[in-house]
Amino acid sequence: MKKISRIYAGYGVSQTPMTIYKERRIRMVIEIKNLFKEPEKYLNQEIEIQGWIRTIRSSKKFGFIEVNDGTFFTNLQVVFDEKLENFKEVEKLPISSAIVAKGLLVETPGAKQPFEIHAKEIMVEGYSHKDYPLQKKRHTFEYLRTIAHLRPRSNTFNAVFRVRSLTAFAIHKFFQERGFVYVHTPIITGSDAEGAGEMFTVTNFDLANVPLNDENKVDYTKDFFGKETNLTVSGQLEAEAYALAFKNVYTFGPTFRAENSNTARHAAEFWMVEPEIAFAGLKENRELAEDMMKYIIKYVMENAQEEMKFFNSFIDKGLIDRLENIVSADFGCITYTEAIDILKKSGEQFQYPVEWGIDLQTEHERYISEKIFEGPVFVIDYPKEIKAFYMRLNDDGKTVAAMDLLVPGVGEIIGGSQREERLDILEKRIEEIGMYKEDYWWYLELRKYGGTKHAGYGLGFERAIMYMTGMTNIRDVIPFPRTVRSAEF
Amino acid sequence: MKKISRIYAGYGVSQTPMTIYKERRIRMVIEIKNLFKEPEKYLNQEIEIQGWIRTIRSSKKFGFIEVNDGTFFTNLQVVFDEKLENFKEVEKLPISSAIVAKGLLVETPGAKQPFEIHAKEIMVEGYSHKDYPLQKKRHTFEYLRTIAHLRPRSNTFNAVFRVRSLTAFAIHKFFQERGFVYVHTPIITGSDAEGAGEMFTVTNFDLANVPLNDENKVDYTKDFFGKETNLTVSGQLEAEAYALAFKNVYTFGPTFRAENSNTARHAAEFWMVEPEIAFAGLKENRELAEDMMKYIIKYVMENAQEEMKFFNSFIDKGLIDRLENIVSADFGCITYTEAIDILKKSGEQFQYPVEWGIDLQTEHERYISEKIFEGPVFVIDYPKEIKAFYMRLNDDGKTVAAMDLLVPGVGEIIGGSQREERLDILEKRIEEIGMYKEDYWWYLELRKYGGTKHAGYGLGFERAIMYMTGMTNIRDVIPFPRTVRSAEF
Repeated sequence: MKKISRIYAGYGVSQTPMTIYKERRIRMVIEIKNLFKEPEKYLNQEIEIQGWIRTIRSSKKFGFIEVNDGTFFTNLQVVFDEKLENFKEVEKLPISSAIVAKGLLVETPGAKQPFEIHAKEIMVEGYSHKDYPLQKKRHTFEYLRTIAHLRPRSNTFNAVFRVRSLTAFAIHKFFQERGFVYVHTPIITGSDAEGAGEMFTVTNFDLANVPLNDENKVDYTKDFFGKETNLTVSGQLEAEAYALAFKNVYTFGPTFRAENSNTARHAAEFWMVEPEIAFAGLKENRELAEDMMKYIIKYVMENAQEEMKFFNSFIDKGLIDRLENIVSADFGCITYTEAIDILKKSGEQFQYPVEWGIDLQTEHERYISEKIFEGPVFVIDYPKEIKAFYMRLNDDGKTVAAMDLLVPGVGEIIGGSQREERLDILEKRIEEIGMYKEDYWWYLELRKYGGTKHAGYGLGFERAIMYMTGMTNIRDVIPFPRTVRSAEF
Repeated sequence: MKKISRIYAGYGVSQTPMTIYKERRIRMVIEIKNLFKEPEKYLNQEIEIQGWIRTIRSSKKFGFIEVNDGTFFTNLQVVFDEKLENFKEVEKLPISSAIVAKGLLVETPGAKQPFEIHAKEIMVEGYSHKDYPLQKKRHTFEYLRTIAHLRPRSNTFNAVFRVRSLTAFAIHKFFQERGFVYVHTPIITGSDAEGAGEMFTVTNFDLANVPLNDENKVDYTKDFFGKETNLTVSGQLEAEAYALAFKNVYTFGPTFRAENSNTARHAAEFWMVEPEIAFAGLKENRELAEDMMKYIIKYVMENAQEEMKFFNSFIDKGLIDRLENIVSADFGCITYTEAIDILKKSGEQFQYPVEWGIDLQTEHERYISEKIFEGPVFVIDYPKEIKAFYMRLNDDGKTVAAMDLLVPGVGEIIGGSQREERLDILEKRIEEIGMYKEDYWWYLELRKYGGTKHAGYGLGFERAIMYMTGMTNIRDVIPFPRTVRSAEF
């Protein structure tokens, strides 16, 4: 520890005199990303880089360090030799130690890497330890989940979480370029958007002493909000209110399900993208979803080329082809009724039998997308019984204007609908399924005061990341996943 | 209700034949934003617009409607006359009815508005009612909070929430352009980042039957996550883990405080922006905060000109001057110790007496920013006792490398610090204040395995919106605010 203190001497002592000052530090330090993007600017010059040691090997007289500074997927090679004052210290540095290296950037024709640094000086910013849990050998994803604070330093997770960041930004960029207003719908809510239960309770009660009322029921009037509150399962209802003011809006935030299912596709906390568009029906909704999917895939393929190549080589061999196929494909469209016909006539042995009225299972969805359409396809007009109360009743009285987007390899990735804007029909539907109109007073008022045709959909953000990276467990695309019996970190 | 059904006949019936199709609807409908941005493209042409009636007045032979379609702050004037087939219906339309208007876009030299539509046809998309609660007369903000589902249709809230959306995007854009990785830190957490308490509990227990263990304490092993969990108060600790993998990262998500304070500045649910930068100290941190503030203000002033003019006229007269001042100002910097000296010598009568060691109150912060610096100023190096455990101890042993950004009119808007990267000092600090090292095992490991100098800060997103709009109550910059005893909608 002494050494580390020595290294830091002079840092952090920020006794700035009381002056209004503007002094910009001249950045001597070059981010490794910039070396790879514009090598011609730095070649044959003395530069300084910082980063963490990914691998290190040395002989008696010289050694090689692969350094990663987090700004770029590919490591930078630093060559050092015994002329370094601290050669013996450097060659023993454990993996993940943080260093600052100064030296000449030189081309390396014929070598694996395009260039390398010949170090004149290597300073240690922060030592790592021999027992660093992320050694070079290949670890299982299961093991890496137990060190979620360190796993973004591995190739796979570094790539996953950069793609996650770029995808999130692509989503914002797509909607903002089209003038959509981003609405932060509430996380804590008194209403159950889906009418589906399985919500987490939010409370300020001491759980060992929950106050009861005269009827021996929980006295929520004494809780923080004066009523029972939960974590939201969807921002849709609130987004509808804003779509009827701004025309085009979207939410993008965390949502929650207290679902006791320990699968590779379910998390208790996940992010959702929910656009909502007014003066628009299912057709505009489908077009929006198709444009959005293509936009974000294109954006990520352009801005994370190294990461995508890595996924394509080591995680999912057909990935890039499949994504390129989506970008250039015309998305299909089929009604639920047609889909059921096809499935019944397919001769395929499904685990879940097919009958008009059933909810489509992943096996059905994948069959339609992979075998029939060989690409993305919307299924629309589902039986009203298997869909949410707010979906618009079609003129047949049996189906609603729902739409699910199915993609090869995954099945459903987007679910949406045109919303029921006719007050009388919506009220009837709410009563029919045993919900209370009073709970939805404001939602119903949206229909009373200038309600218009409107539609929207939800994209499970993690499903999208899995789709774009080829990762197959939702726990591996969330920085610190929350699942049944697991809320570490 | 009959009428509404009639109008919608033909919508929503989406029996698409089973074909892979690509037919893009030719958009006849022009968004009002586009008319104002590029009028020359549409003048003297027959166009179609959609939107909601903001005001309507008519005489026997003609009338005027101000229409807003949510895409632009300024209303579009539609002139109609008795030649309309449904003139008598149209002139009686209640405010907020949704219409589609077709007609010629003509210039109106000398008039308040630059152009108007001479309607040849007006169709009613959705009727409103005479009892529409948002009539033209000026309502109090208090009243409008009770109709949070409708208030974005008013000028003020339309402007507020568009600015909120643009600010959020500007933040993403700023960080992404600099290569920062956006990290979704967890909302549900088992740890208390600030060590400050006042957290909401998240549970799946039936609150009327919370299971107790043998010691008569709550048996959290039976809860959904198998442990006690809360809503996060900050994503900082997790962001640090990612900064030590990606160098530069940021979080932007909801955070929560179960604080029982019913003030204009506190909400139970609010959004926070938290960048974290590695290989960087307080100086780089200050530069980043200054650059970010200038960037987002500039972005909003450029992209919400009408809204900003509105705020400047009706909400806060000096707003635009003050914001322009920030963009061109060099932010000051002063130590806490110097600030205390100035305050003591000021001769000012403060409500809270000034002494080295106190936490600065808003009155002190505003005095320094408004009277001494007449602009934004960082105060750095606070006494360790009044700051969080993770802040880096300065060499004087008494202060920590904290930084608060104070701005005129508000006081503190950003709080940050260099983080303690020295394992031994951090462990000592954790013990000193009675926390448990075991609870922070992974946070401490970040220091063990290649920990480097790093720093970061938090921007309360709602504070920023208040600052940029002149709105003075946090309830009026959150779409559906959650505060003590209030979680409506």
